[in-house]
Amino acid sequence: MDLSAVRGATSDRRVRVAVDVMGGDHAPEEPVHGALIHARAHPEDDIILVGDEIRVRAIAGLELPDNISFVHASELVAMDEHAAANVRSKRDASINVAMRLVRDHDADAVVTAGHTGAGVAAAILHLRRAPGVKRPALAVQMVTETGPFVLLDIGATTDPTGEMLYQYAAMGSLFAEQVLGVENPRVGLLSIGEENGKGDARIQLATKLLQASDLNFIGNVEGKDLVVHMADVVVCEAVVGNVVIKFFEGLSGFIFGLLRKEFERKPFGPPAYLLMRPGIRRIRRIFDYELSGGSPLLGVNGTVIITHGRARRRMISYAVAVGAAAARAEIPEAIARTFERVPRASAGAAVAATPEPSEAVQ
Amino acid sequence: MDLSAVRGATSDRRVRVAVDVMGGDHAPEEPVHGALIHARAHPEDDIILVGDEIRVRAIAGLELPDNISFVHASELVAMDEHAAANVRSKRDASINVAMRLVRDHDADAVVTAGHTGAGVAAAILHLRRAPGVKRPALAVQMVTETGPFVLLDIGATTDPTGEMLYQYAAMGSLFAEQVLGVENPRVGLLSIGEENGKGDARIQLATKLLQASDLNFIGNVEGKDLVVHMADVVVCEAVVGNVVIKFFEGLSGFIFGLLRKEFERKPFGPPAYLLMRPGIRRIRRIFDYELSGGSPLLGVNGTVIITHGRARRRMISYAVAVGAAAARAEIPEAIARTFERVPRASAGAAVAATPEPSEAVQ
Repeated sequence: MDLSAVRGATSDRRVRVAVDVMGGDHAPEEPVHGALIHARAHPEDDIILVGDEIRVRAIAGLELPDNISFVHASELVAMDEHAAANVRSKRDASINVAMRLVRDHDADAVVTAGHTGAGVAAAILHLRRAPGVKRPALAVQMVTETGPFVLLDIGATTDPTGEMLYQYAAMGSLFAEQVLGVENPRVGLLSIGEENGKGDARIQLATKLLQASDLNFIGNVEGKDLVVHMADVVVCEAVVGNVVIKFFEGLSGFIFGLLRKEFERKPFGPPAYLLMRPGIRRIRRIFDYELSGGSPLLGVNGTVIITHGRARRRMISYAVAVGAAAARAEIPEAIARTFERVPRASAGAAVAATPEPSEAVQ
Repeated sequence: MDLSAVRGATSDRRVRVAVDVMGGDHAPEEPVHGALIHARAHPEDDIILVGDEIRVRAIAGLELPDNISFVHASELVAMDEHAAANVRSKRDASINVAMRLVRDHDADAVVTAGHTGAGVAAAILHLRRAPGVKRPALAVQMVTETGPFVLLDIGATTDPTGEMLYQYAAMGSLFAEQVLGVENPRVGLLSIGEENGKGDARIQLATKLLQASDLNFIGNVEGKDLVVHMADVVVCEAVVGNVVIKFFEGLSGFIFGLLRKEFERKPFGPPAYLLMRPGIRRIRRIFDYELSGGSPLLGVNGTVIITHGRARRRMISYAVAVGAAAARAEIPEAIARTFERVPRASAGAAVAATPEPSEAVQ
């Protein structure tokens, strides 16, 4: 596919980002403040705070920048197990109201720290899949010492076909190129072993489609490669991706927790910590995933960024920045153009029978 | 299933472990010495060194314990990409000779540090699947602060059905109970989200089969749970399991590498390291995966332990110990008894069409 054609679409036009300030563990305080941080630093973006207007105005205060506006939502979807199911029953939930703003062209992007499954479900419900896209994918920026790479899908679609994995690769490439500024992004398939085509049936099919495509396909990458910058876009199915990002969080937290315990152990731990503090800070900077902002949901008709449920204002401000950048780069439009241009024949092999996307995430 | 019936089978009889001393990055030196360490410490086990007899005898030396014997093999399968394919063409490769010893009841277990895919392929070729077992699974002991748990499959079978995942759970439970001594092992399914049944189609089917079984099924576990001792047996399909163990190695190595760099950074790193050395040792002990010995291949007619390609003598001696323990506990026989007893009806749902197992690992 010709990605250079897409670049011309990038513009300096104002973009409007709807922030679901009722979503997340620290809502509405932290989302409101995070949105305000971005609004003050970026007068070129319009920020719409979507939520319980009286509460939101009380938190936001009276001295507001001109580029802040409010849209009321009378309900909210809580962070519990049934969040995704609640999207349909709570019509006026903030996440639904925010998605409808994008659907009705009253906003260009949605940012939410709410329940991931609810965000995905609301996006599919209101924005629908982009033309030609079989299933959406949720992407995340993974940390390495030399910068981030894009990993997808981490939980939007279960039981994808090989063709869907191929589409994830194309969508992830567009995001890496247009939003992260990576030229000719290298694409890898996450699998067992480095040997090309090694893996399960869908990985083998995706390998063939990727080899025949214009994408910069480098073959299989393995689990151990996820800490080095082997590829700029790494593609996998939802269970693999979801397990990887949660294991990343769990394992790095586990190791840093063991270290903290040793640094607190008297008498030698505390003085060792004093000596190592600058080094620990350097390491912490590498693991600062807040900088990535959040996870773009690729393949729906609109820009949707789902950030961490535990995100505080700093991370939320970065998520708003990613949302604004993706909207300005017109990623959803670029994705639609990409798949409309793909000849039917080359994409036919593995179309799934079910017309409705499965909602996998929690 | 009634696991207590199996326990009576455990005996104090001598077991014979065939060690493929030509396999692994440090073969034949390290495998030979590892086997000797075990043989000297455990006169109750007979150890058969399988490999190029002249070279092996030269390494082993003249002062040998009585429980060491030699079987010659004129070929070997190298650690390259095509290792699994070479199993069929190299009839007299050490891994094939070792497997035939078990097949012909001249040994009770095989231990190899050779190419994983070659080990799995040779085991399936010579030992065949156990009666009632749909597909074999490769298990590994994962590290946590409070002891190991069993993760499987990490690469024996691609594209498993839900019924196969259920069988993995039963086989992993037997291993955890009989070899690791865990009473009534808790079984979890590795998936997206904690909600029961959440995941892809095969996870949903496996959930139903596990709920209807006598296994101690605790539901889904997530990626973040893989560092805590949530379950004693965690079941997943090969791509997920393989990515997890390789990511574990990559990520922990990455973090410890960053730390080492900081501890080496003058002027404050080296004195901080001196203060922290005991603490770093305590952490290193938790991450000492050599103690786990190696990965049992469950579901074939014989005990097979595949240890790390980079294993040195210490780890190989532990692998021989695990092989001896699994053979003594008659795990393969227990697995066969388990599945022969399962009524056909309850196991019918998702039988795969292909009769031959796929060989997934590298």
